[in-house]
Amino acid sequence: MPTTATRETKHSTLWAQYQSVRAQSEAICAPLEPEDYVVQSMPDCSPVKWHLAHTSWFFETFLLKPHLDGYQSPHPQYDYLFNSYYNSIGERHCRPKRGLVSRPTVTDVYAYRGHVDAHIRLLWETLGEAQRAEIGPLLELGLNHEQQHQELMVTDLKHLFHENPLCPVYQTPGPSLHLPATGPQEAQWITFSAGLRSVGFQGEGFFFDNEGPRHPEWVPGFQLASRLVTNREWLAFIEDGGYQKPEHWLSEGWATAQAHQWQAPLYWWQKRGTDWQEFTLGGMRPLDLDEPVCHVSLFEADAYAAWAGARLPTEAEWEVASETVPLAGQFSDSGGFHPAHAPAQDGLTQMFGDLWQWTRSQYSPYPGDKALPGALGEYNGKFMCNQFVLRGGSCATPQSHLRRTYRNFFSPDARWQFSGLRLAKDHDADAKGL
Amino acid sequence: MPTTATRETKHSTLWAQYQSVRAQSEAICAPLEPEDYVVQSMPDCSPVKWHLAHTSWFFETFLLKPHLDGYQSPHPQYDYLFNSYYNSIGERHCRPKRGLVSRPTVTDVYAYRGHVDAHIRLLWETLGEAQRAEIGPLLELGLNHEQQHQELMVTDLKHLFHENPLCPVYQTPGPSLHLPATGPQEAQWITFSAGLRSVGFQGEGFFFDNEGPRHPEWVPGFQLASRLVTNREWLAFIEDGGYQKPEHWLSEGWATAQAHQWQAPLYWWQKRGTDWQEFTLGGMRPLDLDEPVCHVSLFEADAYAAWAGARLPTEAEWEVASETVPLAGQFSDSGGFHPAHAPAQDGLTQMFGDLWQWTRSQYSPYPGDKALPGALGEYNGKFMCNQFVLRGGSCATPQSHLRRTYRNFFSPDARWQFSGLRLAKDHDADAKGL
Amino acid sequence: MPTTATRETKHSTLWAQYQSVRAQSEAICAPLEPEDYVVQSMPDCSPVKWHLAHTSWFFETFLLKPHLDGYQSPHPQYDYLFNSYYNSIGERHCRPKRGLVSRPTVTDVYAYRGHVDAHIRLLWETLGEAQRAEIGPLLELGLNHEQQHQELMVTDLKHLFHENPLCPVYQTPGPSLHLPATGPQEAQWITFSAGLRSVGFQGEGFFFDNEGPRHPEWVPGFQLASRLVTNREWLAFIEDGGYQKPEHWLSEGWATAQAHQWQAPLYWWQKRGTDWQEFTLGGMRPLDLDEPVCHVSLFEADAYAAWAGARLPTEAEWEVASETVPLAGQFSDSGGFHPAHAPAQDGLTQMFGDLWQWTRSQYSPYPGDKALPGALGEYNGKFMCNQFVLRGGSCATPQSHLRRTYRNFFSPDARWQFSGLRLAKDHDADAKGL
Amino acid sequence: MPTTATRETKHSTLWAQYQSVRAQSEAICAPLEPEDYVVQSMPDCSPVKWHLAHTSWFFETFLLKPHLDGYQSPHPQYDYLFNSYYNSIGERHCRPKRGLVSRPTVTDVYAYRGHVDAHIRLLWETLGEAQRAEIGPLLELGLNHEQQHQELMVTDLKHLFHENPLCPVYQTPGPSLHLPATGPQEAQWITFSAGLRSVGFQGEGFFFDNEGPRHPEWVPGFQLASRLVTNREWLAFIEDGGYQKPEHWLSEGWATAQAHQWQAPLYWWQKRGTDWQEFTLGGMRPLDLDEPVCHVSLFEADAYAAWAGARLPTEAEWEVASETVPLAGQFSDSGGFHPAHAPAQDGLTQMFGDLWQWTRSQYSPYPGDKALPGALGEYNGKFMCNQFVLRGGSCATPQSHLRRTYRNFFSPDARWQFSGLRLAKDHDADAKGL
Repeated sequence: MPTTATRETKHSTLWAQYQSVRAQSEAICAPLEPEDYVVQSMPDCSPVKWHLAHTSWFFETFLLKPHLDGYQSPHPQYDYLFNSYYNSIGERHCRPKRGLVSRPTVTDVYAYRGHVDAHIRLLWETLGEAQRAEIGPLLELGLNHEQQHQELMVTDLKHLFHENPLCPVYQTPGPSLHLPATGPQEAQWITFSAGLRSVGFQGEGFFFDNEGPRHPEWVPGFQLASRLVTNREWLAFIEDGGYQKPEHWLSEGWATAQAHQWQAPLYWWQKRGTDWQEFTLGGMRPLDLDEPVCHVSLFEADAYAAWAGARLPTEAEWEVASETVPLAGQFSDSGGFHPAHAPAQDGLTQMFGDLWQWTRSQYSPYPGDKALPGALGEYNGKFMCNQFVLRGGSCATPQSHLRRTYRNFFSPDARWQFSGLRLAKDHDADAKGL
Repeated sequence: MPTTATRETKHSTLWAQYQSVRAQSEAICAPLEPEDYVVQSMPDCSPVKWHLAHTSWFFETFLLKPHLDGYQSPHPQYDYLFNSYYNSIGERHCRPKRGLVSRPTVTDVYAYRGHVDAHIRLLWETLGEAQRAEIGPLLELGLNHEQQHQELMVTDLKHLFHENPLCPVYQTPGPSLHLPATGPQEAQWITFSAGLRSVGFQGEGFFFDNEGPRHPEWVPGFQLASRLVTNREWLAFIEDGGYQKPEHWLSEGWATAQAHQWQAPLYWWQKRGTDWQEFTLGGMRPLDLDEPVCHVSLFEADAYAAWAGARLPTEAEWEVASETVPLAGQFSDSGGFHPAHAPAQDGLTQMFGDLWQWTRSQYSPYPGDKALPGALGEYNGKFMCNQFVLRGGSCATPQSHLRRTYRNFFSPDARWQFSGLRLAKDHDADAKGL
Repeated sequence: MPTTATRETKHSTLWAQYQSVRAQSEAICAPLEPEDYVVQSMPDCSPVKWHLAHTSWFFETFLLKPHLDGYQSPHPQYDYLFNSYYNSIGERHCRPKRGLVSRPTVTDVYAYRGHVDAHIRLLWETLGEAQRAEIGPLLELGLNHEQQHQELMVTDLKHLFHENPLCPVYQTPGPSLHLPATGPQEAQWITFSAGLRSVGFQGEGFFFDNEGPRHPEWVPGFQLASRLVTNREWLAFIEDGGYQKPEHWLSEGWATAQAHQWQAPLYWWQKRGTDWQEFTLGGMRPLDLDEPVCHVSLFEADAYAAWAGARLPTEAEWEVASETVPLAGQFSDSGGFHPAHAPAQDGLTQMFGDLWQWTRSQYSPYPGDKALPGALGEYNGKFMCNQFVLRGGSCATPQSHLRRTYRNFFSPDARWQFSGLRLAKDHDADAKGL
Repeated sequence: MPTTATRETKHSTLWAQYQSVRAQSEAICAPLEPEDYVVQSMPDCSPVKWHLAHTSWFFETFLLKPHLDGYQSPHPQYDYLFNSYYNSIGERHCRPKRGLVSRPTVTDVYAYRGHVDAHIRLLWETLGEAQRAEIGPLLELGLNHEQQHQELMVTDLKHLFHENPLCPVYQTPGPSLHLPATGPQEAQWITFSAGLRSVGFQGEGFFFDNEGPRHPEWVPGFQLASRLVTNREWLAFIEDGGYQKPEHWLSEGWATAQAHQWQAPLYWWQKRGTDWQEFTLGGMRPLDLDEPVCHVSLFEADAYAAWAGARLPTEAEWEVASETVPLAGQFSDSGGFHPAHAPAQDGLTQMFGDLWQWTRSQYSPYPGDKALPGALGEYNGKFMCNQFVLRGGSCATPQSHLRRTYRNFFSPDARWQFSGLRLAKDHDADAKGL
């Protein structure tokens, strides 16, 4: 049981985190014009204005309204406009119409953020330690929630600027784009033996409900590639007709690729007879062949792996392997918002940061899974259908947000996230099993 | 043949018109926030920012580029972004994606307007009278074109604000909404006898190509209602099950009404058990039963007329009748942007302004019609399919833009324009014919 | 007033027509297997089984149920299944699902026809002359209705067989496909002067409500091509990039052609590097360049005319011109079901039979038009939106079904009817008008 | 290694199976009219005619063409028409258009079956034992494939007849519909303890590639309901607003249920104010409350389980539990084609036959999974995305077709299969794990 002193430290840390996370959301918007906040470039994306307001709505709904007597929202309709998908909270604005709402203006939304911040401070300051202990987890959830939206703000802005024929530049390319030369071109295979393993979160600190409970899982022997698949390797797939050969593809993947006429990763662009370009948050630039391939769907990643004579890892394999390396890598904290070359070192690299890594695991509840009570029970569980798990975080993920057990998930056709892949293989020596 | 003096007068008038029309577009935007300029609330609408730029592009494309040596557009991509539908000019941005483009910003667009205005002035000032005579008609076309977009800006803004659950107010209601009481509730029938009439434009001054040539047309005897159909009358249609009875409707109209679940005009709104409200540019307010019914489609107008034992007029009937009254009414010049009560006077009223009046005439070329050469040939003719003609102008039309022969046209399911209806009947005494 | 003798003759003729028309529907089915009766190859088409039943339902609904005491339909659900579009009659089966109904079987449907025929005979035989005079027009309407469906059976079967990769043959080609060589390749222009004309049906005998009333119309001077446009001429349009040049097309036509990737008329087919083939009811065969081009939409016909520096005729022009030649041509009576070469003769040819001729006239009510009372009022009027008029009949129309005033109408994108075109031009000498 | 004698027995058994399975497909068609063979009632279904031909095409493609010298297919286009989804075999007819093909006729298709049967017999008789041993597995695969299509023929016919407003009867209800009264209304919970288990097929005899390899899997303690969920229980879910409460549903499930306006299982039907009816292959009849609920999607099954405070089993749980009871139940062999009451006995019942049981397991490859080489590699693996596993077989599955390890899979919105559900729960006593 934590002592009062520990608690106090924890709580003042939490308050510092609150200020830092909230400020970070606004820092992401520094390069924007008011017009950039308004647009929803596809139904999966949201306007930046909406992200800023919705993350504030989350604190208002789950902290202020139930716990701060007499709290008044600045506008009675904000609840309707800024609820994302919590059916239990009430009616909400239709998701694909988020970009049709020019009011509240950007100024109004910043005022809403200020209003919520001021009242959260008021709430926090008036609470005793016992109440803080009760409410702290909700505050922490709100911060982790806001960090998720920070990543979405970055990926949604990238999509928005790419939809614009003028290809606007979000920021001038930072240092992360000029890394030293990468290691040897061939990735190594790292071997892991079979065994009954423990998977899922256990311990102190924040985690999402979908990461637990920690539970036993038999993991057969397997091999993981030492680094992410590169643009150079992906180009070989393209040039070998990878996008034209149905035999490598999942049936639904092939149908999707045909319907959308996919011929390369999202944001690759080629003028006839010239080299490939890639759209980045620093604008359009020549494709760097040693960078990891990015903005591919699960469908493409799976087809690539089959073409390469390998497969994607399961999420249990990924998690077991991740325990052998430190949780470090290129996260959003660097401000680069673009994946980097693999370091020239032996062993397992690029396990964290850079790019979310598709697994072959469809997103399912862990054994013994219990949903949170009330509206927060809708946070994760109801999406456990037709989603695949990604692991490891990306260059748009805050480092403090990630854990080894972190389960991100997207539809298998999603391409606008910072998503890449790492190959895996069965390790036959261990296949004898039980 | 005009004298030099006449010409000079005409040209200085034209220049004054240029300044006035261009300023009027910007005056419409006075109540807007930058965010309001960005959104496209449905594919038929365009962002206000786009309207402001496209009308400038028109002058750039048809006057500056061909006639002003060394003219440079501020951005090489503006041509791609701001072409509306002129296939002959080149590739263009996909219409339904106009709302995805946050840049150029509103400030950029106003700079573009300034750039075009400055160069038009330069062009105009450096031209001799002969050249002005050659180029004047194009300038005049550009101004009429911009006036058309002024009306669209108003109707698109109304649609945009209505899509917003906050129902923003564009302007506080002006005096036009507080007119004195209307005349007797029953409209009168005004009779017109049969005869061979002339229809279409002939004479001095600007007209659109679709208004000519003036040509003979046999118009049988008919009767026109003395005023527009009112909200009170439309409510009787609703209450009699007009939206539930297919027998009054065109087949495609019925299918459309079912598919979109139309139960009332666009912008009407009713909370269960309370009176009807109407969304206006002054916000949501109680329905005024004596105002003309507005924002109905041709499909609804036609069904109403059938239900009422009457029909819509043909455009020839409307034009012949319009010659008996002065071209006056409530136009956008009043700034009210809302239709008014019918005046308490005898005879034909509300023929001009207030609301565009649906006719039963499908939009077709007049006999002897010749399209303009080049890209301007695309201005009107290519839309002569599945559109119905509307006549008379509306409260969002500049008075100087209208003529008796003016042919507006929209798809029969369009409801976001200021469109209403006036009933007509055959006049049997004249039906004996030839 | 007709004498009794005339009436009797008329009535026995009518009865002979009943027998002949009903037999003709079944004769069209002689080459079919049971499986061929079931399929609906697109929503615009109906299964042949449905046509056979629906035409019987028409007699049942409008004659037997109201006029034959104690009449019982063989199945209480037939009314639901075989109503086409008469909202006033009651609920009905959803049109696009007609092909999902395997029962009643073909045998059941022939039994239904027999049942209706027997009861119509019973009704007719028990009626006195006065009652026959009252009911005769309904019987005549039923026969004309069935003739319309005979044409649809042929065009729907052609579409069905073309959808089948095996390209089944409906019938071995008949003599109409081996006509003697055609006349000179250049069509002549036949000139008609301006004047106030009478248009529409007047006189004895059956006509559809949309053909009247006969009314005055001012028709400016015009020229008509002496024959239909040929495959050879259409090929020149294709080779000149006609399907790639938006400037010739109506805006909606161009969008439609792009969406469906139209590159040639429906039923044309070309293997790379070889000559064009055409699918006919006699199977796939080399394209005959001297035959009139067939299975083109209004959109294509209009674009062709614009490309050729001409236009399509109005329906009034067509009707006025048609009065100068006898009503004769290749109709379905010949059994060929394919258009023939133009005869090698001077003057206006191919005005009747061979192919329906698209006009530029959008389908609208004539002045003074009155809908029939009750359900039959839905026969024609409710389609007067987004349809264009075709004139002249086709090789699939029974000759006895056609009149000079006959107004056929289809959506401007329809291609599966036997539809072709004839060019027209303004005749300037007469353009001075009033 | 098997002796020659064993082999011979095995081979003559195989031949007997061939004759029996092929005859069974035709027996299913005994009640049909030719028209019933033609229709495709939705894209997921196929015409019966197509099933009969496609199963023959499978033998032709994988046995006759590669192994019988000089074999000629009766028609060069059958390969195009009757390939289902094998991209490696070549181009094929578009699935949703299978119902547009009236030819080949039913008679032609039976002739095709006869042709294939005769040549399979010829091939088989001319082979030596060694060759039979090589080809035998393909023959066995073809038979199992045909058994899968037998089940689809039944479910597709049920859907077809249900689409018909006449609700045709496939067969008069058989004895299986009149079972004695069921056991106690409350299902029991049967407990299984945690442990490392083996899952997947191992041993002699045919199995599908997706059932292997057998592999270790840690299965936590769980409880299974002793029988399937009944109509009575489902009605309680409906009456408690189960279809109106989003909180029980997967997000995509809720969206699907709303989009299709699901209010009850497929084939349930209720006239206002009366009791529920259910459409069966014996026609429409009153809902039997003690029968297991049928024709529910995974989405509905999952929502029901959440509402009931339970969950669906995983496929590993189901398989482990299934090993405790004999593989017996009501299969298609009984000819009833309808699920029966649960027997009045203790312990786990209805594990096999009656209804396929949805599991919460998304369909994924087993560890160590290897696809078959060549086109047969497309048999199963490429569907491992957005499908859920069902276990246990149904009243439309041949008993000889099923194994405990059999993995059926359908999209979570599929409702036209004989699909039901059994509840499961975590067993906390075992939840301590590793």
